[in-house]
Amino acid sequence: MPLHRFYYAKGIFSAQDKQEISERITKIYTSGGLPAFYVIVVFNEVPSDSIMIGGKPATNFVRVVSQHLARTMDTYERKQTVLNALEAAFGPYVKDRGLDWEIHIEEHSRDTWRLNGLNPPLPNTDAEKLWAKENRPSPFEQSKI
Amino acid sequence: MPLHRFYYAKGIFSAQDKQEISERITKIYTSGGLPAFYVIVVFNEVPSDSIMIGGKPATNFVRVVSQHLARTMDTYERKQTVLNALEAAFGPYVKDRGLDWEIHIEEHSRDTWRLNGLNPPLPNTDAEKLWAKENRPSPFEQSKI
Amino acid sequence: MPLHRFYYAKGIFSAQDKQEISERITKIYTSGGLPAFYVIVVFNEVPSDSIMIGGKPATNFVRVVSQHLARTMDTYERKQTVLNALEAAFGPYVKDRGLDWEIHIEEHSRDTWRLNGLNPPLPNTDAEKLWAKENRPSPFEQSKI
Repeated sequence: MPLHRFYYAKGIFSAQDKQEISERITKIYTSGGLPAFYVIVVFNEVPSDSIMIGGKPATNFVRVVSQHLARTMDTYERKQTVLNALEAAFGPYVKDRGLDWEIHIEEHSRDTWRLNGLNPPLPNTDAEKLWAKENRPSPFEQSKI
Repeated sequence: MPLHRFYYAKGIFSAQDKQEISERITKIYTSGGLPAFYVIVVFNEVPSDSIMIGGKPATNFVRVVSQHLARTMDTYERKQTVLNALEAAFGPYVKDRGLDWEIHIEEHSRDTWRLNGLNPPLPNTDAEKLWAKENRPSPFEQSKI
Repeated sequence: MPLHRFYYAKGIFSAQDKQEISERITKIYTSGGLPAFYVIVVFNEVPSDSIMIGGKPATNFVRVVSQHLARTMDTYERKQTVLNALEAAFGPYVKDRGLDWEIHIEEHSRDTWRLNGLNPPLPNTDAEKLWAKENRPSPFEQSKI
Protein backbone atom coordinates (compact mmCIF):
# COMPACT_ATOMS: atom_id res chain seq x y z
CA MET A 1 0.00 0.00 0.00
CA PRO A 2 2.45 2.62 0.81
CA LEU A 3 4.24 3.29 -2.45
CA HIS A 4 7.35 5.40 -2.04
CA ARG A 5 9.02 6.75 -5.15
CA PHE A 6 12.46 8.31 -4.78
CA TYR A 7 13.66 10.61 -7.58
CA TYR A 8 17.31 11.62 -7.73
CA ALA A 9 20.37 11.85 -9.93
CA LYS A 10 22.05 8.52 -10.58
CA GLY A 11 24.86 7.71 -8.20
CA ILE A 12 23.41 9.18 -5.04
CA PHE A 13 22.42 5.83 -3.52
CA SER A 14 24.29 2.55 -3.68
CA ALA A 15 22.53 -0.81 -3.90
CA GLN A 16 23.26 -1.24 -0.20
CA ASP A 17 21.70 2.16 0.57
CA LYS A 18 18.55 1.26 -1.35
CA GLN A 19 18.28 -2.05 0.49
CA GLU A 20 18.66 -0.39 3.88
CA ILE A 21 16.34 2.53 3.15
CA SER A 22 13.59 0.17 2.06
CA GLU A 23 14.09 -2.04 5.13
CA ARG A 24 13.91 0.95 7.45
CA ILE A 25 10.79 2.30 5.76
CA THR A 26 9.16 -1.12 5.92
CA LYS A 27 9.66 -1.26 9.68
CA ILE A 28 7.56 1.89 10.12
CA TYR A 29 4.57 0.11 8.70
CA THR A 30 5.09 -3.37 10.13
CA SER A 31 5.44 -1.86 13.59
CA GLY A 32 1.92 -0.50 13.01
CA GLY A 33 0.62 -3.96 12.18
CA LEU A 34 0.69 -3.74 8.40
CA PRO A 35 1.98 -6.60 6.26
CA ALA A 36 5.58 -6.07 5.14
CA PHE A 37 4.67 -6.81 1.52
CA TYR A 38 2.43 -3.72 1.48
CA VAL A 39 5.53 -1.53 1.47
CA ILE A 40 6.88 -0.77 -2.00
CA VAL A 41 9.88 1.46 -2.58
CA VAL A 42 10.89 2.42 -6.11
CA PHE A 43 14.16 4.23 -6.72
CA ASN A 44 13.74 6.27 -9.90
CA GLU A 45 17.27 7.21 -10.81
CA VAL A 46 17.66 9.64 -13.68
CA PRO A 47 20.72 11.07 -15.44
CA SER A 48 22.08 14.17 -13.72
CA ASP A 49 20.71 16.40 -16.50
CA SER A 50 17.18 15.09 -15.91
CA ILE A 51 16.29 16.34 -12.44
CA MET A 52 16.23 20.06 -11.89
CA ILE A 53 15.57 22.23 -8.86
CA GLY A 54 14.82 25.88 -9.45
CA GLY A 55 16.02 25.53 -13.03
CA LYS A 56 19.41 24.05 -12.06
CA PRO A 57 20.65 20.44 -12.03
CA ALA A 58 19.66 18.88 -8.71
CA THR A 59 22.86 16.99 -8.05
CA ASN A 60 22.47 17.03 -4.28
CA PHE A 61 18.77 16.42 -3.87
CA VAL A 62 16.26 13.64 -3.27
CA ARG A 63 12.54 14.02 -3.98
CA VAL A 64 10.23 11.50 -2.32
CA VAL A 65 6.61 10.95 -3.36
CA SER A 66 4.77 8.71 -0.90
CA GLN A 67 1.30 7.31 -1.44
CA HIS A 68 -0.85 5.80 1.28
CA LEU A 69 -3.85 3.54 0.77
CA ALA A 70 -4.33 1.24 3.77
CA ARG A 71 -4.60 3.86 6.49
CA THR A 72 -5.89 7.42 6.73
CA MET A 73 -3.99 9.92 8.84
CA ASP A 74 -6.83 11.63 10.66
CA THR A 75 -5.11 14.53 12.38
CA TYR A 76 -2.38 17.05 11.65
CA GLU A 77 -0.37 15.56 14.51
CA ARG A 78 -0.64 12.06 13.05
CA LYS A 79 0.59 13.35 9.71
CA GLN A 80 3.62 14.93 11.34
CA THR A 81 4.37 11.69 13.19
CA VAL A 82 4.40 9.76 9.93
CA LEU A 83 6.56 12.37 8.22
CA ASN A 84 8.95 12.24 11.17
CA ALA A 85 9.17 8.46 10.89
CA LEU A 86 9.84 8.53 7.15
CA GLU A 87 12.46 11.24 7.45
CA ALA A 88 14.13 9.31 10.27
CA ALA A 89 14.12 6.19 8.09
CA PHE A 90 16.01 7.76 5.19
CA GLY A 91 17.80 10.43 7.25
CA PRO A 92 21.14 8.59 7.56
CA TYR A 93 21.34 8.36 3.76
CA VAL A 94 20.10 11.86 3.00
CA LYS A 95 20.26 14.48 5.77
CA ASP A 96 23.35 12.99 7.43
CA ARG A 97 25.18 13.09 4.10
CA GLY A 98 24.37 16.74 3.51
CA LEU A 99 21.79 16.16 0.79
CA ASP A 100 18.69 18.30 0.44
CA TRP A 101 15.33 16.57 0.24
CA GLU A 102 11.63 17.11 -0.20
CA ILE A 103 8.77 14.76 0.58
CA HIS A 104 5.02 14.75 0.33
CA ILE A 105 2.52 12.05 1.19
CA GLU A 106 -0.69 11.53 -0.75
CA GLU A 107 -3.66 9.57 0.47
CA HIS A 108 -5.69 7.68 -2.12
CA SER A 109 -8.88 5.67 -1.92
CA ARG A 110 -8.71 2.01 -0.94
CA ASP A 111 -11.83 1.32 -3.00
CA THR A 112 -9.70 1.20 -6.13
CA TRP A 113 -6.77 -0.72 -4.69
CA ARG A 114 -5.95 -4.40 -5.14
CA LEU A 115 -3.16 -6.84 -4.39
CA ASN A 116 -2.98 -9.97 -6.53
CA GLY A 117 -6.60 -9.36 -7.49
CA LEU A 118 -7.84 -9.04 -3.92
CA ASN A 119 -9.35 -6.00 -2.24
CA PRO A 120 -7.15 -5.79 0.86
CA PRO A 121 -8.75 -6.37 4.24
CA LEU A 122 -9.89 -3.46 6.39
CA PRO A 123 -7.57 -2.11 9.09
CA ASN A 124 -6.98 -4.32 12.10
CA THR A 125 -9.24 -7.13 10.92
CA ASP A 126 -8.37 -10.79 11.39
CA ALA A 127 -7.74 -11.01 7.67
CA GLU A 128 -5.23 -8.16 7.78
CA LYS A 129 -3.51 -9.78 10.73
CA LEU A 130 -3.25 -13.04 8.78
CA TRP A 131 -1.82 -11.22 5.75
CA ALA A 132 0.74 -9.58 8.04
CA LYS A 133 1.63 -12.85 9.76
CA GLU A 134 1.99 -14.84 6.54
CA ASN A 135 3.43 -11.85 4.64
CA ARG A 136 1.34 -12.65 1.58
CA PRO A 137 -2.20 -11.93 0.39
CA SER A 138 -4.77 -14.72 0.66
CA PRO A 139 -8.50 -14.88 -0.10
CA PHE A 140 -10.85 -14.05 2.77
CA GLU A 141 -14.53 -13.33 3.31
CA GLN A 142 -14.87 -9.92 1.67
CA SER A 143 -17.45 -7.48 2.92
CA LYS A 144 -18.22 -4.41 0.90
CA ILE A 145 -15.94 -1.64 2.11
CA MET B 1 -6.61 10.56 -19.89
CA PRO B 2 -6.04 7.31 -18.27
CA LEU B 3 -2.35 7.26 -17.52
CA HIS B 4 -1.07 3.86 -16.46
CA ARG B 5 2.42 3.63 -15.04
CA PHE B 6 3.91 0.17 -14.61
CA TYR B 7 6.88 -0.18 -12.23
CA TYR B 8 8.94 -3.37 -12.25
CA ALA B 9 12.44 -4.80 -12.44
CA LYS B 10 13.95 -4.68 -15.91
CA GLY B 11 13.46 -7.85 -17.92
CA ILE B 12 9.97 -8.76 -16.75
CA PHE B 13 8.23 -7.59 -19.92
CA SER B 14 9.43 -7.90 -23.51
CA ALA B 15 8.75 -5.24 -26.14
CA GLN B 16 6.00 -7.51 -27.46
CA ASP B 17 4.45 -7.80 -23.98
CA LYS B 18 4.42 -4.03 -23.60
CA GLN B 19 2.78 -3.62 -26.98
CA GLU B 20 0.08 -6.16 -26.20
CA ILE B 21 -0.59 -4.94 -22.66
CA SER B 22 -1.10 -1.39 -23.91
CA GLU B 23 -3.38 -2.58 -26.74
CA ARG B 24 -5.49 -4.60 -24.33
CA ILE B 25 -5.76 -1.73 -21.86
CA THR B 26 -6.70 0.67 -24.67
CA LYS B 27 -9.61 -1.58 -25.67
CA ILE B 28 -11.16 -1.18 -22.22
CA TYR B 29 -11.55 2.53 -22.79
CA THR B 30 -12.40 2.58 -26.49
CA SER B 31 -15.17 0.05 -25.85
CA GLY B 32 -16.60 2.69 -23.49
CA GLY B 33 -16.52 5.32 -26.22
CA LEU B 34 -13.29 7.07 -25.28
CA PRO B 35 -10.72 8.07 -27.90
CA ALA B 36 -7.87 5.58 -28.18
CA PHE B 37 -5.29 8.36 -27.90
CA TYR B 38 -6.51 9.12 -24.37
CA VAL B 39 -4.88 5.91 -23.17
CA ILE B 40 -1.25 6.31 -22.15
CA VAL B 41 0.81 3.44 -20.76
CA VAL B 42 4.32 4.07 -19.45
CA PHE B 43 6.56 1.14 -18.53
CA ASN B 44 8.98 2.37 -15.87
CA GLU B 45 11.62 -0.32 -15.79
CA VAL B 46 14.19 -0.02 -13.03
CA PRO B 47 17.29 -2.07 -12.18
CA SER B 48 16.50 -5.06 -9.98
CA ASP B 49 18.07 -3.34 -6.96
CA SER B 50 15.72 -0.37 -7.34
CA ILE B 51 12.29 -1.80 -6.61
CA MET B 52 11.70 -3.29 -3.18
CA ILE B 53 8.76 -5.00 -1.56
CA GLY B 54 8.78 -5.35 2.20
CA GLY B 55 12.45 -4.41 2.25
CA LYS B 56 13.47 -7.08 -0.27
CA PRO B 57 14.18 -6.87 -4.01
CA ALA B 58 10.88 -7.23 -5.87
CA THR B 59 12.08 -9.46 -8.66
CA ASN B 60 8.69 -11.03 -9.26
CA PHE B 61 6.38 -8.08 -8.89
CA VAL B 62 4.58 -5.43 -10.94
CA ARG B 63 3.18 -2.21 -9.42
CA VAL B 64 0.59 -0.37 -11.46
CA VAL B 65 -0.45 3.24 -10.78
CA SER B 66 -3.48 4.25 -12.86
CA GLN B 67 -4.86 7.74 -13.11
CA HIS B 68 -8.29 8.62 -14.49
CA LEU B 69 -9.41 12.03 -15.68
CA ALA B 70 -12.16 11.71 -18.30
CA ARG B 71 -14.65 9.69 -16.29
CA THR B 72 -15.60 9.40 -12.63
CA MET B 73 -16.42 5.98 -11.22
CA ASP B 74 -19.50 6.75 -9.18
CA THR B 75 -20.10 3.55 -7.28
CA TYR B 76 -18.08 0.89 -5.53
CA GLU B 77 -19.40 -1.64 -8.04
CA ARG B 78 -18.24 0.48 -10.98
CA LYS B 79 -14.78 0.73 -9.45
CA GLN B 80 -14.57 -3.04 -9.11
CA THR B 81 -15.67 -3.47 -12.73
CA VAL B 82 -12.87 -1.21 -13.92
CA LEU B 83 -10.30 -2.97 -11.71
CA ASN B 84 -11.51 -6.30 -13.08
CA ALA B 85 -11.10 -5.06 -16.64
CA LEU B 86 -7.57 -3.76 -16.02
CA GLU B 87 -6.48 -6.93 -14.25
CA ALA B 88 -7.92 -9.00 -17.08
CA ALA B 89 -6.03 -6.86 -19.59
CA PHE B 90 -2.60 -7.45 -18.07
CA GLY B 91 -3.43 -10.81 -16.45
CA PRO B 92 -1.87 -13.01 -19.15
CA TYR B 93 1.45 -11.19 -18.68
CA VAL B 94 1.37 -11.02 -14.90
CA LYS B 95 -0.94 -13.40 -13.02
CA ASP B 96 -0.66 -16.19 -15.59
CA ARG B 97 3.13 -16.03 -15.35
CA GLY B 98 3.12 -16.31 -11.58
CA LEU B 99 4.05 -12.71 -10.89
CA ASP B 100 2.65 -10.78 -7.95
CA TRP B 101 1.05 -7.43 -8.61
CA GLU B 102 -0.58 -4.43 -7.00
CA ILE B 103 -2.71 -1.73 -8.57
CA HIS B 104 -4.50 1.38 -7.50
CA ILE B 105 -6.53 3.86 -9.52
CA GLU B 106 -6.59 7.57 -8.74
CA GLU B 107 -9.18 10.00 -10.01
CA HIS B 108 -8.04 13.55 -10.71
CA SER B 109 -9.87 16.69 -11.76
CA ARG B 110 -10.53 17.28 -15.45
CA ASP B 111 -10.44 21.04 -14.82
CA THR B 112 -6.66 20.93 -14.91
CA TRP B 113 -6.28 18.52 -17.82
CA ARG B 114 -5.40 19.33 -21.40
CA LEU B 115 -4.47 17.58 -24.61
CA ASN B 116 -2.51 19.56 -27.20
CA GLY B 117 -3.64 22.71 -25.43
CA LEU B 118 -7.33 21.83 -25.49
CA ASN B 119 -9.61 21.15 -22.53
CA PRO B 120 -11.06 17.79 -23.56
CA PRO B 121 -14.78 17.58 -24.33
CA LEU B 122 -17.24 16.44 -21.69
CA PRO B 123 -18.31 12.76 -21.59
CA ASN B 124 -20.50 11.55 -24.44
CA THR B 125 -20.66 14.90 -26.22
CA ASP B 126 -20.52 15.20 -29.99
CA ALA B 127 -17.04 16.63 -29.65
CA GLU B 128 -15.85 13.61 -27.67
CA LYS B 129 -17.38 11.30 -30.27
CA LEU B 130 -15.53 13.17 -33.00
CA TRP B 131 -12.25 12.93 -31.11
CA ALA B 132 -12.84 9.20 -30.71
CA LYS B 133 -13.75 8.73 -34.37
CA GLU B 134 -10.79 10.71 -35.69
CA ASN B 135 -8.47 9.51 -32.91
CA ARG B 136 -7.00 12.96 -32.49
CA PRO B 137 -7.90 16.15 -30.60
CA SER B 138 -9.45 19.00 -32.56
CA PRO B 139 -10.79 22.41 -31.53
CA PHE B 140 -14.49 22.58 -30.68
CA GLU B 141 -16.92 25.01 -29.08
CA GLN B 142 -15.77 24.94 -25.46
CA SER B 143 -18.26 25.57 -22.72
CA LYS B 144 -17.04 26.16 -19.22
CA ILE B 145 -16.92 22.82 -17.46
CA MET C 1 6.46 22.18 -4.28
CA PRO C 2 5.45 22.01 -7.80
CA LEU C 3 6.78 18.68 -9.00
CA HIS C 4 6.64 18.29 -12.76
CA ARG C 5 7.32 14.88 -14.22
CA PHE C 6 7.81 14.62 -17.98
CA TYR C 7 7.39 11.19 -19.59
CA TYR C 8 8.56 10.63 -23.15
CA ALA C 9 10.63 8.42 -25.41
CA LYS C 10 14.36 8.90 -25.03
CA GLY C 11 15.87 11.36 -27.50
CA ILE C 12 13.03 13.86 -27.62
CA PHE C 13 14.76 16.42 -25.41
CA SER C 14 18.43 17.37 -25.33
CA ALA C 15 20.23 18.32 -22.13
CA GLN C 16 19.92 21.93 -23.26
CA ASP C 17 16.18 21.55 -23.78
CA LYS C 18 15.76 20.11 -20.30
CA GLN C 19 17.73 22.97 -18.80
CA GLU C 20 15.67 25.59 -20.59
CA ILE C 21 12.30 23.96 -19.95
CA SER C 22 13.02 23.78 -16.23
CA GLU C 23 14.21 27.41 -16.17
CA ARG C 24 11.08 28.59 -17.96
CA ILE C 25 8.81 26.61 -15.66
CA THR C 26 10.63 27.94 -12.61
CA LYS C 27 9.96 31.52 -13.72
CA ILE C 28 6.20 30.91 -13.59
CA TYR C 29 6.42 30.24 -9.89
CA THR C 30 9.09 32.75 -8.88
CA SER C 31 7.11 35.51 -10.62
CA GLY C 32 4.30 34.59 -8.20
CA GLY C 33 6.62 34.99 -5.22
CA LEU C 34 7.51 31.34 -4.64
CA PRO C 35 11.07 30.27 -3.90
CA ALA C 36 12.88 28.96 -6.98
CA PHE C 37 13.97 25.83 -5.13
CA TYR C 38 10.31 24.79 -4.76
CA VAL C 39 10.24 23.98 -8.47
CA ILE C 40 11.31 20.43 -9.30
CA VAL C 41 11.28 19.06 -12.82
CA VAL C 42 12.05 15.39 -13.46
CA PHE C 43 12.52 14.14 -17.01
CA ASN C 44 11.53 10.46 -17.03
CA GLU C 45 12.92 9.22 -20.31
CA VAL C 46 11.97 5.69 -21.29
CA PRO C 47 12.95 3.48 -24.23
CA SER C 48 10.74 4.03 -27.26
CA ASP C 49 8.99 0.70 -26.67
CA SER C 50 7.98 1.77 -23.16
CA ILE C 51 5.55 4.61 -23.70
CA MET C 52 2.38 3.88 -25.62
CA ILE C 53 -0.53 6.02 -26.73
CA GLY C 54 -3.68 4.24 -27.82
CA GLY C 55 -1.78 0.97 -27.94
CA LYS C 56 0.94 2.31 -30.24
CA PRO C 57 4.48 3.53 -29.51
CA ALA C 58 4.29 7.21 -28.55
CA THR C 59 7.33 8.40 -30.45
CA ASN C 60 6.05 11.93 -30.87
CA PHE C 61 4.45 12.59 -27.51
CA VAL C 62 5.17 14.16 -24.13
CA ARG C 63 3.08 13.44 -21.03
CA VAL C 64 3.38 15.90 -18.17
CA VAL C 65 2.18 15.18 -14.63
CA SER C 66 2.29 18.29 -12.44
CA GLN C 67 1.71 18.33 -8.71
CA HIS C 68 1.03 21.45 -6.68
CA LEU C 69 1.36 21.79 -2.93
CA ALA C 70 2.11 25.40 -1.96
CA ARG C 71 -0.88 27.09 -3.57
CA THR C 72 -4.47 26.12 -4.30
CA MET C 73 -6.05 27.22 -7.57
CA ASP C 74 -9.43 28.41 -6.39
CA THR C 75 -11.30 29.02 -9.62
CA TYR C 76 -11.65 27.42 -13.03
CA GLU C 77 -10.18 30.57 -14.54
CA ARG C 78 -7.12 30.40 -12.30
CA LYS C 79 -6.56 26.79 -13.32
CA GLN C 80 -6.66 27.73 -16.98
CA THR C 81 -4.19 30.56 -16.37
CA VAL C 82 -1.72 28.15 -14.79
CA LEU C 83 -2.18 25.60 -17.58
CA ASN C 84 -1.61 28.36 -20.11
CA ALA C 85 1.59 29.38 -18.37
CA LEU C 86 2.93 25.83 -18.23
CA GLU C 87 2.07 25.14 -21.86
CA ALA C 88 3.75 28.41 -22.85
CA ALA C 89 6.84 27.42 -20.87
CA PHE C 90 7.39 24.11 -22.67
CA GLY C 91 5.65 25.11 -25.93
CA PRO C 92 8.81 25.97 -27.90
CA TYR C 93 10.16 22.46 -27.19
CA VAL C 94 6.91 20.59 -27.75
CA LYS C 95 4.13 22.31 -29.72
CA ASP C 96 6.52 24.30 -31.91
CA ARG C 97 8.34 21.10 -32.86
CA GLY C 98 5.14 19.33 -33.86
CA LEU C 99 4.99 17.02 -30.86
CA ASP C 100 1.71 16.03 -29.23
CA TRP C 101 1.36 16.50 -25.50
CA GLU C 102 -0.92 15.98 -22.55
CA ILE C 103 -0.79 17.56 -19.12
CA HIS C 104 -2.72 17.41 -15.91
CA ILE C 105 -2.14 19.18 -12.62
CA GLU C 106 -2.91 17.60 -9.28
CA GLU C 107 -3.26 19.48 -6.02
CA HIS C 108 -2.13 17.72 -2.86
CA SER C 109 -2.28 18.63 0.81
CA ARG C 110 0.46 20.80 2.28
CA ASP C 111 -0.10 19.14 5.67
CA THR C 112 2.01 16.21 4.53
CA TRP C 113 4.71 18.16 2.73
CA ARG C 114 8.20 18.97 3.97
CA LEU C 115 11.44 20.42 2.69
CA ASN C 116 14.63 19.47 4.52
CA GLY C 117 12.48 18.44 7.45
CA LEU C 118 10.58 21.71 7.64
CA ASN C 119 6.87 22.29 7.05
CA PRO C 120 7.02 25.10 4.48
CA PRO C 121 5.69 28.53 5.46
CA LEU C 122 2.18 29.57 4.54
CA PRO C 123 1.60 31.61 1.38
CA ASN C 124 2.86 35.19 1.40
CA THR C 125 4.22 35.08 4.94
CA ASP C 126 7.47 36.73 5.93
CA ALA C 127 9.01 33.29 6.24
CA GLU C 128 8.04 32.38 2.68
CA LYS C 129 9.44 35.65 1.45
CA LEU C 130 12.72 34.92 3.23
CA TRP C 131 12.87 31.45 1.73
CA ALA C 132 12.30 32.97 -1.71
CA LYS C 133 14.92 35.68 -1.17
CA GLU C 134 17.58 33.30 0.14
CA ASN C 135 16.48 30.47 -2.17
CA ARG C 136 16.84 27.92 0.59
CA PRO C 137 14.70 26.62 3.45
CA SER C 138 15.48 27.86 6.94
CA PRO C 139 13.83 27.30 10.32
CA PHE C 140 11.14 29.76 11.34
CA GLU C 141 8.45 30.11 13.98
CA GLN C 142 6.01 27.42 12.90
CA SER C 143 2.34 27.85 13.63
CA LYS C 144 0.04 24.91 13.16
CA ILE C 145 -1.24 25.04 9.61
